[in-house]
Amino acid sequence: MRRKVCVVVTARPSYSRIKTALRAIEEHPDLELQLVVAASALLERYGSAVKYIEEDGFKISARVYMVLEGENLASMAKTTGLGVLELATVFDNLSPDVVVTVADRYETLATAVAAAYMNIPVAHVQGGEVTGSIDEKVRHAVTKLADLHLVSSENAAERVRKMGEDPCSVYVTGCPSIDLAAQILEAPKLNFDPLQRYGGVGAPLDISNGYLVVMQHPVTTEYGLAREHVFETLNAVQEIGLPTLWFWPNVDAGSDGTSGGIRSFRETLQPKNIHFFKNMEGMDFLRLLHNSRCLIGNSSVGVRECSFLGVPVVNIGSRQAGRDRGTNLLDVHYDRSEIVDAVRHHMGNGRYPHDTIYGDGRAGKRISQVLAQAPLKIDKRLTY
Amino acid sequence: MRRKVCVVVTARPSYSRIKTALRAIEEHPDLELQLVVAASALLERYGSAVKYIEEDGFKISARVYMVLEGENLASMAKTTGLGVLELATVFDNLSPDVVVTVADRYETLATAVAAAYMNIPVAHVQGGEVTGSIDEKVRHAVTKLADLHLVSSENAAERVRKMGEDPCSVYVTGCPSIDLAAQILEAPKLNFDPLQRYGGVGAPLDISNGYLVVMQHPVTTEYGLAREHVFETLNAVQEIGLPTLWFWPNVDAGSDGTSGGIRSFRETLQPKNIHFFKNMEGMDFLRLLHNSRCLIGNSSVGVRECSFLGVPVVNIGSRQAGRDRGTNLLDVHYDRSEIVDAVRHHMGNGRYPHDTIYGDGRAGKRISQVLAQAPLKIDKRLTY
Amino acid sequence: MRRKVCVVVTARPSYSRIKTALRAIEEHPDLELQLVVAASALLERYGSAVKYIEEDGFKISARVYMVLEGENLASMAKTTGLGVLELATVFDNLSPDVVVTVADRYETLATAVAAAYMNIPVAHVQGGEVTGSIDEKVRHAVTKLADLHLVSSENAAERVRKMGEDPCSVYVTGCPSIDLAAQILEAPKLNFDPLQRYGGVGAPLDISNGYLVVMQHPVTTEYGLAREHVFETLNAVQEIGLPTLWFWPNVDAGSDGTSGGIRSFRETLQPKNIHFFKNMEGMDFLRLLHNSRCLIGNSSVGVRECSFLGVPVVNIGSRQAGRDRGTNLLDVHYDRSEIVDAVRHHMGNGRYPHDTIYGDGRAGKRISQVLAQAPLKIDKRLTY
Amino acid sequence: MRRKVCVVVTARPSYSRIKTALRAIEEHPDLELQLVVAASALLERYGSAVKYIEEDGFKISARVYMVLEGENLASMAKTTGLGVLELATVFDNLSPDVVVTVADRYETLATAVAAAYMNIPVAHVQGGEVTGSIDEKVRHAVTKLADLHLVSSENAAERVRKMGEDPCSVYVTGCPSIDLAAQILEAPKLNFDPLQRYGGVGAPLDISNGYLVVMQHPVTTEYGLAREHVFETLNAVQEIGLPTLWFWPNVDAGSDGTSGGIRSFRETLQPKNIHFFKNMEGMDFLRLLHNSRCLIGNSSVGVRECSFLGVPVVNIGSRQAGRDRGTNLLDVHYDRSEIVDAVRHHMGNGRYPHDTIYGDGRAGKRISQVLAQAPLKIDKRLTY
Repeated sequence: MRRKVCVVVTARPSYSRIKTALRAIEEHPDLELQLVVAASALLERYGSAVKYIEEDGFKISARVYMVLEGENLASMAKTTGLGVLELATVFDNLSPDVVVTVADRYETLATAVAAAYMNIPVAHVQGGEVTGSIDEKVRHAVTKLADLHLVSSENAAERVRKMGEDPCSVYVTGCPSIDLAAQILEAPKLNFDPLQRYGGVGAPLDISNGYLVVMQHPVTTEYGLAREHVFETLNAVQEIGLPTLWFWPNVDAGSDGTSGGIRSFRETLQPKNIHFFKNMEGMDFLRLLHNSRCLIGNSSVGVRECSFLGVPVVNIGSRQAGRDRGTNLLDVHYDRSEIVDAVRHHMGNGRYPHDTIYGDGRAGKRISQVLAQAPLKIDKRLTY
Repeated sequence: MRRKVCVVVTARPSYSRIKTALRAIEEHPDLELQLVVAASALLERYGSAVKYIEEDGFKISARVYMVLEGENLASMAKTTGLGVLELATVFDNLSPDVVVTVADRYETLATAVAAAYMNIPVAHVQGGEVTGSIDEKVRHAVTKLADLHLVSSENAAERVRKMGEDPCSVYVTGCPSIDLAAQILEAPKLNFDPLQRYGGVGAPLDISNGYLVVMQHPVTTEYGLAREHVFETLNAVQEIGLPTLWFWPNVDAGSDGTSGGIRSFRETLQPKNIHFFKNMEGMDFLRLLHNSRCLIGNSSVGVRECSFLGVPVVNIGSRQAGRDRGTNLLDVHYDRSEIVDAVRHHMGNGRYPHDTIYGDGRAGKRISQVLAQAPLKIDKRLTY
Repeated sequence: MRRKVCVVVTARPSYSRIKTALRAIEEHPDLELQLVVAASALLERYGSAVKYIEEDGFKISARVYMVLEGENLASMAKTTGLGVLELATVFDNLSPDVVVTVADRYETLATAVAAAYMNIPVAHVQGGEVTGSIDEKVRHAVTKLADLHLVSSENAAERVRKMGEDPCSVYVTGCPSIDLAAQILEAPKLNFDPLQRYGGVGAPLDISNGYLVVMQHPVTTEYGLAREHVFETLNAVQEIGLPTLWFWPNVDAGSDGTSGGIRSFRETLQPKNIHFFKNMEGMDFLRLLHNSRCLIGNSSVGVRECSFLGVPVVNIGSRQAGRDRGTNLLDVHYDRSEIVDAVRHHMGNGRYPHDTIYGDGRAGKRISQVLAQAPLKIDKRLTY
Repeated sequence: MRRKVCVVVTARPSYSRIKTALRAIEEHPDLELQLVVAASALLERYGSAVKYIEEDGFKISARVYMVLEGENLASMAKTTGLGVLELATVFDNLSPDVVVTVADRYETLATAVAAAYMNIPVAHVQGGEVTGSIDEKVRHAVTKLADLHLVSSENAAERVRKMGEDPCSVYVTGCPSIDLAAQILEAPKLNFDPLQRYGGVGAPLDISNGYLVVMQHPVTTEYGLAREHVFETLNAVQEIGLPTLWFWPNVDAGSDGTSGGIRSFRETLQPKNIHFFKNMEGMDFLRLLHNSRCLIGNSSVGVRECSFLGVPVVNIGSRQAGRDRGTNLLDVHYDRSEIVDAVRHHMGNGRYPHDTIYGDGRAGKRISQVLAQAPLKIDKRLTY
């Protein structure tokens, strides 16, 4: 009897992070994949991850609408509650042997809570990392609800064990997002025109002589400041003047602050060197990143994929604070001149060597092996 | 400006455990109490804790119905989700400065999740203990979502710190349930007839020559076995033959297994030495316990209050496994002869000395002090 | 391609009322039955209709837990809301061609709301009747949301048409509950001992010389009076002294008033002529009714099945007011002496002739025919 | 004791329709207004009605987030369910004497369901009208749940009575939206520059020589066609060439079809005579409308306010079918040439005389009078 592995994918970036594991689970002779697509992964204005999932040929076992509209913190909490309600029904119907939950979003927590109360073993991917903000609380709370820990690095493993988890339940698999980055190295050249393929809005750009990429998300504990923060970056990028490809943020309380700020800046100042994209197919995005002069913003892509690829990163603000990082990354505040200086420093320096702190490109296969072979149990205790 | 302290009480036993803290918060000049009564605390068939709360003169700021009916695990998960949905609305209306959540029930988790996502600091009472089962996962997940830890013992504090919590956020206050036990010692004599005051069903009893108390809850990870387990205890108690006061279990998946088992045993065998109670006012219950020959079952009262009172306890099965315990407690399996032997051993031995491992009787006041003075913040990181 | 007919069954009495239609749909070559079992039909303390459904060999497509605990009106409204949330997911998965909703319960409304918003045609069984109370509002609101009306009588059809429904969408099928009553007439003799087969609690009874049956539900617009009302009936039945088989009420706000009243009366007065049952397999119940001297209470069984069977009925209070009724029924107030007088009047009179105002015993087949052949559309307008 | 009147406002257009009634209730000596702002009325991307409500000086008693994101019908049904859940809590806290629900949206139904189950009398504004589509079902279902009917016209009153409602519960008050239109007549001149005051996006326009207004919503029973439908209007307007002020649609399943169609047309063809607005303060909008050459689309504003104002209307498709209408309105299909012809016909014809079929401008006051004086009861029956 094959183990039924239910993976809940809830956002475009989570999909990228788990895709090679999904494939490996699907192909594993002892596993049966039950893929649940939920939350913003289903919504057009957050990039319809579901379309890419279908195009990649995955069979979807259930779709779960659970994102409550509203530009405030209560609606974020309510979305989590709704997620638990809905996912309980899904798990009741699918009867999985193990549920896989990814990273540290509110749906990650909703998934873990529903499965834990239903006595279904929970496997958590990307535990043990340090970031601050609500993600930090959620990630470690999920660790305490989880029965299997599939972590990215030895540092992360050490932190999970220190939190009192049974060392036998902790596996260093690497992060599956690095698997995709590793595939890029096999054909690294930029083989498409992003404006032509993805449209987007804003200035037409000639990127043949180098370009920047920006990806800046609102930070939930700084709710209310999102607009000011994004203005600093917009001004910095306008000052630098290099062609810039800018990606819209994810859904989150405050995203309308960031989005609103971008929209207002764009309409008022009509910056000539910035083009805005809603989203991009994962491999196209990585290839674009790989060929960029610098990534600016606060995305975890800067910490993870870029360290492996050796792409220079200007990391703004507190969102990635505490995460293990490579030498390719410079930290700055929400301050336009700091951002400009850091980008110029990187320009003078060029690319960085590969770094495997987040994985060596074989995480997906390792995750499927663990899910196929690890003992599945739901009872645990602190090890101290 | 007084700090607004929102305490969520969700069950009869949680109320007993937090009552002295509620009183101390209410009386503290720098604090304003916002009391939310939710879940089974509102329901007649789980003892209507809300009536005692009102009789004790507390003002209730909001009532939250959230218990979904159904004898299965999905409905337990759904209740948690519904709790998050509902409590988010409550917190949005009350705008507390800090939310207090107690112990390790599903509403405890719902409370912590809603508050954490709403950027409200969470104070957790009774973290750092070890029990196994889903409660264990939930308790430590709440620790990771909480910003202040108000723990019962130095052992618990040590575990919370080891989990990576900032030592400055951990306070050993003792457990407020012990405060009530301490009040009993001031007037220890049994001053009422339980059958006369509380009715109940079953055999009439003469308890003047000693009696047993039983309190046995279903264990959620052993869902399905509840009926068999309770039969062992029922048979043991019938064999011992001493007058026995038996309390019905809390709401939980499987409670209908336990309840059904009791009901069926009672109607078939009509045991002559057992009388069944739904619930009892907290001080009456403690006084009854204090004067009993032995407590049998798996209630945490056996571990906590009874260690302080020195009442002999026969603790059945895994529910309290791992908890710090006094010398007054003997552990047995779900096995009628083991239960009988342990009770007889205790009878030969008599009462035990007081033990303060769970507190010295001043926890409520200490908790109110911490809530009034501790820095309230929502950002935290692992200490390693 | 067979039409997919999704029927939502939510309570024990609804199941009895729709059972022959379920069978006819299942057996119809052009229809595929999708049976959803929800709400109190899943719960042990309301008679676990789901067990009878399984024993009858129906395949269940989805189970939906949606009953919120709580003895108040808000929890009843919340249950309805939760039902809409959950049923939307179910309909999204099952993609039925038509949804069948029965009678006038809150789940009936939840079913109609979810299906109407999802552009799925709604067929309503038992519309057009008149009862007063919240059921009246709900029943007619469901009529306005429904696209097909499968009514019990020409009177009901006339009312539905008068409400502005397209006459082409109104079908007089008879009530499928009468189909079961019609089956009883083929083998009318009481062929089992109810106490032996169903246990129950209360006095042992010898029913060989005749017996009464009681079935009294709380009335939601008289919430708060349930306890007093049921006391009148209990006292009347005790005074009459005939052996009495009493059935517990359904879930509803206030059911705990009725249930609590019964429990308290039973434990205090220990009536010697009353035995209490939780529920009974449908055919056994009808056969029991058919052989009884009189039915007392406010169940719609008295209006429908008993008119067909010719069983004398004492109908108490307002719950059935306005319904078309046969000559077998006497209306009384919540008044013990009125109840006693009416029962005695019936005793002197004996059985009544069959009455087909609610159907002739072939409703199930007619319903399946309509569902197979009627045009299914979702757009409609008032006919005036 | 003043009657507590709870009004639930859930969208920008509903606010306009009820505003004069809100003011009259607030000012009535025997009434206390409890204003609940919910659903899309709280959301920025649907025009933040809440801001206008606050600017108008109304005190808000509760805010309810309940809109679930998702471009499908299931999420619309789920939003309704969530609304019932949330509003039950709100009503439980506010304990109103009567709840007022407006028109025929899903929140209108959610409001009526929650109140009806909680035994709170429901007053329905704008019942008895005929429109087709899901709104039709919802409007009449709300009529059947409502206890007081405050209708716009004698035609509407007649329909409500025919549906079996007690004639004593039906009051012809006129529609409060006409009250605002009546205020315009006191100062009819366009006293602001819409592009300057409201920004918006698209071509700069000179409207001094006349302009068109467009307002086109998706039709839920034609879900999937929204994009094609809006293209016809966009092409027609481009062909006519007059300066055009276009308003974005409301939230609804399919609104992303309409919105997406507009966005795509705008970016591809960059029409030189169309400027797009998110929303406008109600009086500004009416004054703009009053001075326009023609309103195009399917908004009910064309049927109601424009008939009173005498503004020519080209009404597209089925959305307003069946509504009582004035001579100012021409009906066309989703067909660009029909639209163009109808607009040109109107241009040749000019303004129409005032028509009071939807009210005479004193509805708000009449509504407050009825709410203050009408008997409030919750039990009703069909009148036939």
